[in-house]
This record gives sequence, C-alpha cells and structure tokens, in this order.
Amino acid sequence: MTSQIDARAATAAATAYLREHDAEHLAQLDEFLRMRSVSADSECADDVRRTAQWIVDELTRLEIDRPTLHETSHHPIVTGEWMGAGAEAPTVLVYCHYDVQPPDPLDEWIRPPFEPRHEEGRVYARGSGDDKGQLFMHLKAVEAWMRTAGSLPVNLRFFFEGDEEVGSEPIEQFIDEHPELLAADVCVVSDGDTFDDDGTPAIGYGLRGIAYWEVRVQGPRHDVHSGQYGGGVDNPANVLVRILASLTDESGRFTVPGFYDRVRDLSSEERAAYAALPFDEAAWADETGIPAAMDGEQGHSLLERLSARPTFDINGISGGYTGAGAKTIIPARATAKISTRLVPDQDYREIEQLVKRHIESLAPPSVQVEVHVVHGGAPAITPLDHPGVAPASRALEAGFGKAPLFQRSGGSVPVVAALDARLGLKTLMVGFANPTGNFHAPNEWISLRNLRDGMASLVHLWAELGMMHKDELRGDSQE
Amino acid sequence: MTSQIDARAATAAATAYLREHDAEHLAQLDEFLRMRSVSADSECADDVRRTAQWIVDELTRLEIDRPTLHETSHHPIVTGEWMGAGAEAPTVLVYCHYDVQPPDPLDEWIRPPFEPRHEEGRVYARGSGDDKGQLFMHLKAVEAWMRTAGSLPVNLRFFFEGDEEVGSEPIEQFIDEHPELLAADVCVVSDGDTFDDDGTPAIGYGLRGIAYWEVRVQGPRHDVHSGQYGGGVDNPANVLVRILASLTDESGRFTVPGFYDRVRDLSSEERAAYAALPFDEAAWADETGIPAAMDGEQGHSLLERLSARPTFDINGISGGYTGAGAKTIIPARATAKISTRLVPDQDYREIEQLVKRHIESLAPPSVQVEVHVVHGGAPAITPLDHPGVAPASRALEAGFGKAPLFQRSGGSVPVVAALDARLGLKTLMVGFANPTGNFHAPNEWISLRNLRDGMASLVHLWAELGMMHKDELRGDSQE
Repeated sequence: MTSQIDARAATAAATAYLREHDAEHLAQLDEFLRMRSVSADSECADDVRRTAQWIVDELTRLEIDRPTLHETSHHPIVTGEWMGAGAEAPTVLVYCHYDVQPPDPLDEWIRPPFEPRHEEGRVYARGSGDDKGQLFMHLKAVEAWMRTAGSLPVNLRFFFEGDEEVGSEPIEQFIDEHPELLAADVCVVSDGDTFDDDGTPAIGYGLRGIAYWEVRVQGPRHDVHSGQYGGGVDNPANVLVRILASLTDESGRFTVPGFYDRVRDLSSEERAAYAALPFDEAAWADETGIPAAMDGEQGHSLLERLSARPTFDINGISGGYTGAGAKTIIPARATAKISTRLVPDQDYREIEQLVKRHIESLAPPSVQVEVHVVHGGAPAITPLDHPGVAPASRALEAGFGKAPLFQRSGGSVPVVAALDARLGLKTLMVGFANPTGNFHAPNEWISLRNLRDGMASLVHLWAELGMMHKDELRGDSQE
Repeated sequence: MTSQIDARAATAAATAYLREHDAEHLAQLDEFLRMRSVSADSECADDVRRTAQWIVDELTRLEIDRPTLHETSHHPIVTGEWMGAGAEAPTVLVYCHYDVQPPDPLDEWIRPPFEPRHEEGRVYARGSGDDKGQLFMHLKAVEAWMRTAGSLPVNLRFFFEGDEEVGSEPIEQFIDEHPELLAADVCVVSDGDTFDDDGTPAIGYGLRGIAYWEVRVQGPRHDVHSGQYGGGVDNPANVLVRILASLTDESGRFTVPGFYDRVRDLSSEERAAYAALPFDEAAWADETGIPAAMDGEQGHSLLERLSARPTFDINGISGGYTGAGAKTIIPARATAKISTRLVPDQDYREIEQLVKRHIESLAPPSVQVEVHVVHGGAPAITPLDHPGVAPASRALEAGFGKAPLFQRSGGSVPVVAALDARLGLKTLMVGFANPTGNFHAPNEWISLRNLRDGMASLVHLWAELGMMHKDELRGDSQE
C-alpha cells in the first residue's frame, strides 16, 4: 500500500509525463489505428495478428513481464503482467479488445477508416473509440507510471482479445485453461463510454448480453420469373419478411414463447435512478438524425429501453435484385442477420435455441429455412456497493474534473459475464469512448478530451486502488 | 388473297428454305444474342442501341420499307413495313422486344450470359427465349417468304421495343404519336411460351398486368451500434419487414383495402378449361427445385393462381450488413423492390396509388418511408372467338405437328393492353419460349425444336392469314 502523500506526488509526476508526451502518444495511437484489425473479415487475419504483436512489443518496451501472444481457435489473445507491487497490494486484471468492427459502408466515411485524422479536437478512425483507443490509453497510463515512479502502485495483469466484435468465442476456453494468467482481485474493463460528450465520466454497472443468428430461406434453385411462377412458387423474401415480422409485436416486444421468463424487472430504486439521469431526448435523436425515438415497449422510459430491456434488430437483410431499375423475379433465396440484446438474468444459450426452434417451426413446406447461431454473450451486473466503485469514482473525478454518473450500458462485453461465472471476478467498467462517437458506424471518433482525461483517470485509478489492501478490494457483496 | 393451293406450295418452299439455312441462321442468332441489350442497366445503353441498329440493318437487308430507329424518352423503338400484299389483304402488326433482363446473379451462369452456346438441343444465352430469340424467328420467317416467293401473303408492320423489361414506358407516347406506323387489323405478339417443353404449342389469350414499387425506409443518418441505440432508435429493416409482411395475409392475399375491387372472377367455363389442362405439379415443382408449391389463395387451383389471380412478390430487399460474420448495427436504411401481377379488370394506375398510399399510411413517426412507383402495365384478355384464333391455331399445328392449347399467361406484356386501349387493336399471342427455359433467371435457354417449329409456324401463319380478307380478320367480338 502506498500512502496518500506518496500517491499524490507520484500521480502528479505521471500525469505531467502524459501532458509532456501528448504529441508523441497521439502519433503512436495513429500507428495503432492504421492496422486493419477487423476480426469479422478473414482477409484481415494477418492485420489482426500484426495488431496483437504490436501490443506484445509495447508491453515488452514497458518492461511488463511475460508479454505473450496466445494462439486460440480464432484470433490471438495477448497477456502480460507486472507483479512488482507486492503480495499485499491488489492485483487488477485489465481487459480491452484490439479488434474492430468492419468499416462498411465504406462510402459513408469522409476519410478512409484506417487513415486516422485529427480534426475538431477529435481523432477519426475505425477503433478510435471502440476499443483500440481505450486499450492504448491503458498502455500509456502504465508507461506514465513506469517512466516516472519506475513502478506501479498495484499489480496489473493484461487480457487483450481480438474477437470481441465477433462474439469473443475463444475467451471461455482461454479463461478455463489459463486461470493463473488472469487471477486478480478485480477486473477493470475499458470498452464503454463516458456519460456525455461534455466531459461527464461514467461507471458502468450493467451490460446487456446478446444472441445473434443468421436466417436463410431457400426457394427455387435459381431466381425465377415472377409472372410465370408468381402465385405458385413461394417467394423466399416474402417468407423471410413474414417470419421476421412475426417475431415481435408492434412495440418491439418478442412474441417468442418463454423469451421474457428470466428477465429481471428493474427495482423501484433503479427506476428512480434512471429517471434522475440528465437526458435530452431531442438532442439525442438529433445526433443520430432520426425524426423521433421509436415507440417502444410500454411501461418503460426511453433510457430504460436503451439499456435495461431486451431488443430485436435485423442487422442485415438481403435477397433478390437490388441493382438499378426493376427485375421481375422471385429470388432463389433471402437471408437475414438478426440479434437481440439480453438483460439479466436471461441465458443467451437458452435464448439462442428458443428463437432458433421458434423460427424453424414457422417455416412453410414450400421453402427451406435454416437458422444458424452466430454468437452469444451473457448480460452482467456489478453491484454498486463493490469496494472498487468509490476509488474508481474518485479517480474519474480527478481525471475529468467531474464526478461520474452510474449507468447500465446497452451494449455487450461477453468477457465480463465470463470472468464472473468462471473466476468469480467482479468488473469495474470505466469507459472512455464518446457516446455519440459513431462506434460500429462510419466516421468513428474519440475526443482528445476523453483520451487525455481518460489516461489521467487511469493514472489516478492505480493510485487509488494502490492505497487499498487486496483483501479490502475483493468485494463479496452480491446483488 | 392467295388461294389455298398457291399458299401450300409457297409455304412448302419457305419452310424448305428455313431448313436449308438452319446453320447460317443459328450463327446469326448467336450474333444477335451476343449484344448486351440490358435495358435496366444504364451502362448497357450503347449495346441496347447497337441491338436496335442491328434489327434496322436486318430489315433493310430483307427489303422491308422504311426501317427506322426512333428515339424515345428511353431506349429506341424500331419500326418498318411491307405493304405489298395489297389493300384487300390483312395488315398484321408484329411486336417483340429486343431488350433483355439483367443477367444477375452472374455467378450462377454456367457460361457467360452473352456468349451463346449450343448444347443438348438448346441455345443458352440471356434473351434466347425472352425475347430476342422470338424476334429473330420473325425476321427469319419473313426472310423465308421474301427469298422464296419474293413477297409475303399479308401486309406486315413491325414494332420492336427496347424497354419491355423495364416497364415499356415509352410505348404509350409512341403509339399516340405514330398511329400510322402501327395501323393494322390484328397484332401478333411473340413474347410468351409454348404449353410444355414437349412440343405442344400454345395460344395465349390473357396476360397479367403489373405494378412495381421501390420502398425506402430511412432511420438514423448512419448505421448505429445496436447495443447503444437498440430499444430507442427504430430499425429501418425491422420497419420495412413489418410493413411488407402486413401487405398480405398468410395465403398471399393482399390486405390493402380496395385491391380486389375490380378483379374479374373466372367464369365456370374458364375454370373447367383450366381443370382440363394437362399439368404435372410434381414435375413442375421439381423443375424449379422447390420442395412444394406454395400454400396459395384458397379456392383457386395452382394453375389458376399462376395466371388468373394477383400475386405479391418482393423482387429484391437489402439493408444493413450482409458480409461475412456478424455486425451489430441498426442499419441507416433498408430498401425493397416489390411488385404485384394484376388481372382483368384491375387498373394498374389505381393499384399503384392504392398501395403507395397504404404503405405511406403505415410509416411510424420514428423513420422516413418513401414509396416510388417504378413501372406498371395493364392486364389483357383477347376473346377466344377472335377470327384470327382459328388460323393461328392451324399455323401452330402445321409448325409443331400438335394442336395448340389455350392458356392465360402469368406474365405481363404492357404493349398488348396499350394497343387495345389506344388503337382498338386485338392481339394474338403466339409464343415460342420454353416454359422451363429460365427466362429472367440464370442459364436462360430455348430449344432448337421450338426455334425451328416456331419459325415454320410463322411461315404458315402468314399463309393462313393471307387467305382471309382484311374485313374478315378485324374481329369486333367483345369479351
């Protein structure tokens, strides 16, 4: 444990280091963002690996012990550790992912997605917010401690994966096979966002889970003439559309039997907390360009629906002729990628099968319907009385100059639920992406403010946690 | 009028000419099919024009008078005439179209679509059946008469268009502006198929109409993260699917109010005729590769549904991410091309507006929905007691060695209704494509048998009609 006075001087030196090396760090960030680590695209496999190796090289440069690139069933996982804070100090597992979403639709990017540009106080590039930018901030916060104090106030272990955007399939096996590389008193995940774009930080205490399917409907062997065969040959696109439309009612609520059985209702305290969050609905709608929020599930506020209720989305749909003009065909096939965000205590494996079987049961005999499970992840909740929450809150306030708000995130980070289920490890979610920063969309960006204040927050976070005994930190509270 | 004896000798000479020049004609057909006359693709505009000019050159070579390429608002129309049969002889307007469907999906063609190949007694190429092959047969039947008798038994006018596959938009204006080029006692349209692939010819007496729309749903400005925004930002693909699914009930019957108001029910005689047509449902389904016919509109047989009842088809649908793997987005937009085949006495302009307004009325305030009318065409019926039907029937029997069956076609040929409405001109539909010849699909083909027997039938048709006085042929019967 470091004393408060030591910690104050050391964090001042480390944050000064970050300010002095700002230009150099931004240039390094660009180098990191230029690598096309698109996990969904098999043509990018070499770039994904190169990105993992870049992280290993950085860890080596920072004198982190045993920086290792682990082969998995898919993309590599990177680990490393620094255990110099001693046996009494807390050990923190830091998780981020270095893979990024596909950049499509490419023609909507103002600059190419892998050529970072700095404009209007922002860094634009695929992965700048989600999640390479945040991973980079962790590397630089460690660098700041190592280059000033020559040590860290806590023991750190690193867990960086390359499959988060495609469902984190390898992590469960990795956790089971390498618990010693991940053993810690608490996990810190940086793969979320601040509360607003105005410098209000956030601590995330809940994540939605996800289940994702591809539905394929096959009709005639080839496209056929809609005049000659229309009325006799069933149209796979008609069938697909009918099936998908039937999965939800008009408010977007699932009609699949059993879907809501395990959904935990919000407590009245939590609903009151949601209602108290500052939220400008008109500004929110305007930011995305929609005319109005959707008419969602009755009895739930928009903020509740955005993070604490399940969703249904068609992520992609295709079939037939989509070129210029008209083509009068019955298409041979139609396909959709669909997903649902899940909330505690839904079991994604159960939902995967429930929806798959339900869709298959709707298939008419005139076509073939196949449902493939693409990936899934469990929802997660960290109790707000976890002993790491108060120090994290102080660290964020120190970095951003504003106290954090507490929020559940609408997104999914499969590792959080997996670490809890397999290692009993609770997670503090401190995220630094900008909430309107177009992650998963064209023209992704992160603000320089979030980058700089986020790095400073992490410097403070290690100081704050370093003042605790490890037994203090390992929270046993249950929600 | 030619006498029966003269006619018999002359048709024998003309059909002998066709047999003697078979190889040369097939080579010319290949030349014609090689031109990429895809009317829907603006990049093919020059090829479409080149194809029209090729026809003008052929007509010139055949000593047809005034072969002319007419500019229109879209692709050229070709006309020409031979009026040497005298003022008492019938004048027949011959209509075909020289444009073809887009060849997509290209990767399903065994050979490139514009490199004709002759295999298994078939000619494979885009347009071989629909409709360049049939246009070519008319040119060669005329050549056979001109090169043997040096004249034709009837006066012929030609009306060849290049926009049939995209809705024939220019023809109504053309008919109104050039009635003198189209004046005739009857029209012969060859843009349909024989009854089976076994050499049973057909006379078509009904066509379905068509109405075609593009529906565009716009949500957020860009694709957005489905975790961050799911539950609040409405999903354009979800909305599109919901709207499209709601347009029909489970049997494919439209739910749009007023849609069936003008649908003429089949008479009991016509239903009996339908029931008597030879039809092997299992073979029909097998040919397209579907597991079973669709469960269509109740109270109508499959054959009735295939040609005498309206349909609803999604011809193309797209939105969001359709690449490899998964992308967890709410797409910015989703689009569908949809169409319905119409039956007498539905008015396609009324239906266009009815469906457009209905879809617009279904748009939720959370997205923008636009409906564009792409093209339309009226349904048509030619009475079976028209005086041209019996001679056409004899001509087809002479060409194919089998009496024709009478059928309504499920497809649409907009010119047929337009000529009736504007010039009072009735149409005999004698079509020579193969019913399973993949028109509008990959690997389109026509059989050499249909090509040869069809050309011979046309030689006989002009002889048969040439034995009539023009007043006899101009049918005044009404159905």
